[in-house]
Amino acid sequence: MDAIETILTRRSIRKYEDKKVPAEVVKALLDAGMHAPTARNIQPWHFIVIDDRAILDQLSIAHPYAKMMKQASLAILVGGDRNLQEVEGYIIQDCSAVTQNIMLAAHAYGLGSVWLGMYPREQRMQDVGKILEIPEHILPVSLISIGYPTETVKPPVRYKEERVHFNKF
Amino acid sequence: MDAIETILTRRSIRKYEDKKVPAEVVKALLDAGMHAPTARNIQPWHFIVIDDRAILDQLSIAHPYAKMMKQASLAILVGGDRNLQEVEGYIIQDCSAVTQNIMLAAHAYGLGSVWLGMYPREQRMQDVGKILEIPEHILPVSLISIGYPTETVKPPVRYKEERVHFNKF
Repeated sequence: MDAIETILTRRSIRKYEDKKVPAEVVKALLDAGMHAPTARNIQPWHFIVIDDRAILDQLSIAHPYAKMMKQASLAILVGGDRNLQEVEGYIIQDCSAVTQNIMLAAHAYGLGSVWLGMYPREQRMQDVGKILEIPEHILPVSLISIGYPTETVKPPVRYKEERVHFNKF
Repeated sequence: MDAIETILTRRSIRKYEDKKVPAEVVKALLDAGMHAPTARNIQPWHFIVIDDRAILDQLSIAHPYAKMMKQASLAILVGGDRNLQEVEGYIIQDCSAVTQNIMLAAHAYGLGSVWLGMYPREQRMQDVGKILEIPEHILPVSLISIGYPTETVKPPVRYKEERVHFNKF
């Protein structure tokens, strides 16, 4: 799929087919994520690939906005290693660019996905962290629910002239 | 350009031709940015498009890693409105996804770009904020230097098996 079309037509998708995502596609999504730029090129990211039905079900309850994970065949948690990148603000930016790459790649592969916020919600980070056994030095930034879509969402018109400033705010 | 190819071949580009970016391409980059997902779909983003030579030169000195902006014909500052989104951590994530979309779109349009970190560096936020007259309620997250590339950087091999965990960390 064309890059610009992929960017403009990606939507949050919460309804999925009961169909596994092939291992090579999962790897391609992770590789796309790893190609995001990171502050000082430190690449502090870690990924937890979740395809175990029981764990997906647990997450669908533990995270307040993850009900759709009852149907998702895949989820990816993106986090950053505090021992590699000590600046928390950079971990957030790095992992967010990673997350966006994964979601765009998912769309290009015919998958639907939705970004579930983790950071800075302490309760979610703790509850999801417990299920996935995330150690203290890994900061969980996002949880992505992924599957083959059974819904289509119209691309939005988003351009807002009033948010664009020229040379000075 | 194909989406996956765009993601995998985008690199930080710091050397540019002395050539303006057409207004319709600038608008397409901003539109790509605005299509990034945002927490609760609040879309708190603001953009400052900088193409004034004198201001680009000022920025190249004010930001410690912006020397390449002496050659760049364009820069885009991405920031978020604290009055629209009160959770600072969400503004960072939103604006980072926006920044990544802009950089991918730039690459797809044959442009090169590099992400210059702003947040959470107080000095940079203050110095750049002064030049661009950014008000208090706008949190500046990233500054993107953009131009037609005169360098090519080889796509990296990034996949790290040891950063991928299955179902539990």
